[in-house]
Amino acid sequence: MKNTMSINYKDIENAYKKISDSITKTPIISNDYINNLLDAEVYFKLENLQNTGSFKLRGATHKISKLSNKIVNNGVVAYSSGNHAQAVAYAALKKNISAKIIMPKNAPKIKINNTRKYGADVILYDTFFENREKIGNDIKEKENRLLIKPYDDIDVIAGQGTAGIEIADDLNKLSVIPEIYLCCCGGGGLIAGSSTYLKHVFPNLKIYSVEPNGFDDTKKSIENKKIIENSSNSKSICDALLAPKPGNITFPINLKNIYGGISVSDEEVKKTLILLSEHLKIVVEPGGAVAAAALLNKKIDTRNKKIVVMISGGNIDIELFRSL
Amino acid sequence: MKNTMSINYKDIENAYKKISDSITKTPIISNDYINNLLDAEVYFKLENLQNTGSFKLRGATHKISKLSNKIVNNGVVAYSSGNHAQAVAYAALKKNISAKIIMPKNAPKIKINNTRKYGADVILYDTFFENREKIGNDIKEKENRLLIKPYDDIDVIAGQGTAGIEIADDLNKLSVIPEIYLCCCGGGGLIAGSSTYLKHVFPNLKIYSVEPNGFDDTKKSIENKKIIENSSNSKSICDALLAPKPGNITFPINLKNIYGGISVSDEEVKKTLILLSEHLKIVVEPGGAVAAAALLNKKIDTRNKKIVVMISGGNIDIELFRSL
Repeated sequence: MKNTMSINYKDIENAYKKISDSITKTPIISNDYINNLLDAEVYFKLENLQNTGSFKLRGATHKISKLSNKIVNNGVVAYSSGNHAQAVAYAALKKNISAKIIMPKNAPKIKINNTRKYGADVILYDTFFENREKIGNDIKEKENRLLIKPYDDIDVIAGQGTAGIEIADDLNKLSVIPEIYLCCCGGGGLIAGSSTYLKHVFPNLKIYSVEPNGFDDTKKSIENKKIIENSSNSKSICDALLAPKPGNITFPINLKNIYGGISVSDEEVKKTLILLSEHLKIVVEPGGAVAAAALLNKKIDTRNKKIVVMISGGNIDIELFRSL
Repeated sequence: MKNTMSINYKDIENAYKKISDSITKTPIISNDYINNLLDAEVYFKLENLQNTGSFKLRGATHKISKLSNKIVNNGVVAYSSGNHAQAVAYAALKKNISAKIIMPKNAPKIKINNTRKYGADVILYDTFFENREKIGNDIKEKENRLLIKPYDDIDVIAGQGTAGIEIADDLNKLSVIPEIYLCCCGGGGLIAGSSTYLKHVFPNLKIYSVEPNGFDDTKKSIENKKIIENSSNSKSICDALLAPKPGNITFPINLKNIYGGISVSDEEVKKTLILLSEHLKIVVEPGGAVAAAALLNKKIDTRNKKIVVMISGGNIDIELFRSL
């Protein structure tokens, strides 16, 4: 019997069949300035151009596409720092499903506002004094809503993995065999799904997780081959990547697929946001830029290599963007 | 005998064969937020993601690919407010050809700096007291350089037209037949080339030129069926679109292809730049956003229509972008 917590490329292909009409097929872009700067061949996957501004729409749309009628009637609930929130709200709206979303009071305004615009009932909580999982579970119990977890869910992981199908298709059309894949990592859903697919197509690909300094739980967990939690007093501008520890489902997948872990500082991320807007002409949020920050700050040797870099989201408050 | 000043879709296909390995195949992107806002199906062609930050690389690369050995040795010269400057400098650099570029002193800093970075000899002139065409012609005569005009050149027009091939290919893959094409217009090279190709593939397409208020020479010229010059005291933030009048070569092509002319105000462009960065997650320069401004400010009825919108460039000074 197949282990229901495991995932392979066929699960991701099946997810893509379900969601491909509901999401944007985002482009990969190569840029001469950056290639010359690094003496490398870099392909950026632009999930910041995805509807709702991040890859999270893939997983949320897939999860919601599989709901039973009973759950559809009761609605869904989710907790999220903002990108999963918008994605669940949006995917629920498209299916006329009621959505309650629990978000931190200090989440970027653009994320809170958009989640409300997509028709969800937003419940703000204090990250110091309250626990989002408890609030979510209470609502789930009381209202019989389905809780859609941000990453530790095999359907969500398969949905996020569909970004890998598009990367592989586009690279195959260009006859490019990538050697390195740099992908951001919060709870690890995107990297778990996309690396599973990319490893299937490109077996020799070296996959690196990239996290903010102080939130490099996946890096430490992989090095120690067991789940290790972040210190609770860390801070980072990468609001999308502050998960406390790897997921129970994502971690074994990532342990198998990831070659090495990288972490980057807020300063490195800020410089990267500026360079991406000046040279790649794209708006990226801090958490969406960590993989590019690892590349541009030369955390690994990429010279003469073919590299795929995930740009995972673009939901940055205009005040923060301006202040850079 | 074929009129050497006319152009058809085959000229553009031939240009694409010469340049496709030297340019980025830029994506078209559709965005649910904007589609819902307008009740329309909009496809943005992202030439701001082109190398050098604008479509101009297409025409410059094509022109330079056709140069004789003698011209290659003497080098080239060009005048431009900035995007053609960067494109000629970059295309010349790739072929090891010397380039002199004449640019206005008040051109965006990013454009002047990049043109220099690409190895060109930049000559700044005062737009009030000096004439760029005269300076360009003097250098051409003295140094036997080839003058690469920004738009009134059939090879440059064919090169810019290759953006139309990519649009048509991508829309065909999506089984989309567009009804409206909105394209910026300065001297008219991009719209002349791209509309020639798109009209060939989609004969019923309605093509609109979009210009800044006060620089709507193509609109007026088409309405009057003869070349009409702009008033010399107009001002606009759209530095890329300030050509004084339609070109002698571009005008007859555009007169044949264009269905109507539209003009937009600086305020409408500024609001558009903000919306494009917040919702499409892209950085666009003022001149690159006029077609989107016409769309978003509802200059024509686009409801329930399938529309292609050209985003032509992204070279905006960070100070201006921040000030929005």
